[in-house]
Amino acid sequence: MTKPSRPGRFISFEGIDGSGKSTQARLLAEALREGGSPVTLTREPGGSAGAEEIRRLLVEGAPDRWSPETEILLFTAARRDHVEKLIRPALEAGETVICDRFVDSTRVYQGTARADLRDMVDALHASMIGLEPDLTLVIDMNPEQALARGLARDSGEDRFEDMGAGFQHRLRRGFLDLAAANPDRCAVIDGMADPQTVAGRVRETLEARTGP
Amino acid sequence: MTKPSRPGRFISFEGIDGSGKSTQARLLAEALREGGSPVTLTREPGGSAGAEEIRRLLVEGAPDRWSPETEILLFTAARRDHVEKLIRPALEAGETVICDRFVDSTRVYQGTARADLRDMVDALHASMIGLEPDLTLVIDMNPEQALARGLARDSGEDRFEDMGAGFQHRLRRGFLDLAAANPDRCAVIDGMADPQTVAGRVRETLEARTGP
Ligand SMILES: Nc1ncnc2c1ncn2[C@@H]1O[C@H](COP(=O)(O)OP(=O)(O)OP(=O)(O)O)[C@@H](O)[C@H]1O
Ligand SMILES: Nc1ncnc2c1ncn2[C@@H]1O[C@H](COP(=O)(O)OP(=O)(O)OP(=O)(O)O)[C@@H](O)[C@H]1O
Ligand SMILES: [Mg+2]
Ligand SMILES: [Mg+2]
Repeated sequence: MTKPSRPGRFISFEGIDGSGKSTQARLLAEALREGGSPVTLTREPGGSAGAEEIRRLLVEGAPDRWSPETEILLFTAARRDHVEKLIRPALEAGETVICDRFVDSTRVYQGTARADLRDMVDALHASMIGLEPDLTLVIDMNPEQALARGLARDSGEDRFEDMGAGFQHRLRRGFLDLAAANPDRCAVIDGMADPQTVAGRVRETLEARTGP
Repeated sequence: MTKPSRPGRFISFEGIDGSGKSTQARLLAEALREGGSPVTLTREPGGSAGAEEIRRLLVEGAPDRWSPETEILLFTAARRDHVEKLIRPALEAGETVICDRFVDSTRVYQGTARADLRDMVDALHASMIGLEPDLTLVIDMNPEQALARGLARDSGEDRFEDMGAGFQHRLRRGFLDLAAANPDRCAVIDGMADPQTVAGRVRETLEARTGP
């Protein structure tokens, strides 16, 4: 992991739908707080008041309401607000920021749809956001098993079926390729175990990469 | 004027607050329609359903709600939607599109605030929008006289006073500099006369530049 130029550290969780990102982000935040570290736990899209309003434009209405390009601009606007208002101030105050999804989700979801959109996300991120996590934890698992977990939830099954299993397999590949291309920043965590076992793997990886 | 690569023609009106852009855009649309040309009259920010929703995020709430950078991303997202959903289809159908403010307003308003923001607007426009008007009519006048007109309106005076007369003078200079830097695309129209006289100047300029 490259030495961050700010006092705090910035950790993102990534992975396919239902892989356990939100669960692991919460468990890591709890463990670090118990250890006495100040933690800001947040998520995307959204995470700040302005970004949540932009999120509403993105998630409400018809699926084809925005073109992919307009959607990328709106995601970037929301991320800029989130980074300015919440993430950077917390990092500058020396906190550990844990973010449930960040730019890699935009890279992978848009990039899985069209290669030129991936380039657009990268270019907009480089010029308008700049910030990359110090450590990105990719929770990896089989989409069929993630679906089976999702059955326990309200919204999981619909979304999976809406998008199709083939799409989830392409997303998984996208996250693994991204981790392989950025080995200093990313670590792949096997998500197939009970939550506490996966949480132990997350903490081991964090300690190995950044010290306790 | 460079030959457009599309059947229709795209005309924008620009200028300081209260210079008569909306009045002249309407008068030109009426004149062309009377002459039998199909015309789409629109405005920014907004102009399409999605862009109007983004506009609402931009105009409502506290003035410092968004950073200049987030604001530029939101303006670009709105413009992308407007161009995709309304302007390009109308141009491809062979219509004359008249737009009350377009990217030059963003260039001048943001660029008057900070030079690096002007570069940001230009870079985002080049990569995410691309479309420039075939002809941009800058309605030029003295800010004090524009203010006096505004006194007849509800909202004019407040806005002018909020922003300050010095700001309107810098905006005027910004529009004139932009027209000087883009002489093939832009024409400066003296806005100090009654509306029909100014409208006559607008039509003469249009004929001289594009043919009747
Ligand atoms: N290790 C685990 N074993 C079994 N079930 C789990 C595990 N981790 C999470 N779950 C359950 O699986 C479901 C999905 O978990 P979670 O919401 O953490 O995933 P997610 O990656 O955040 O999903 P989404 O992408 O939809 O936000 C939840 O019902 C959660 O309680
Ligand atoms: N040539 C003119 N002479 C006198 N008054 C005018 C003239 N043109 C417009 N007006 C009046 O001046 C006011 C401002 O005109 P208009 O709304 O067209 O300006 P605008 O440039 O669109 O302003 P804004 O930037 O605020 O949208 C209106 O009350 C309008 O009726
Ligand atoms: Mg989640
Ligand atoms: Mg107007």
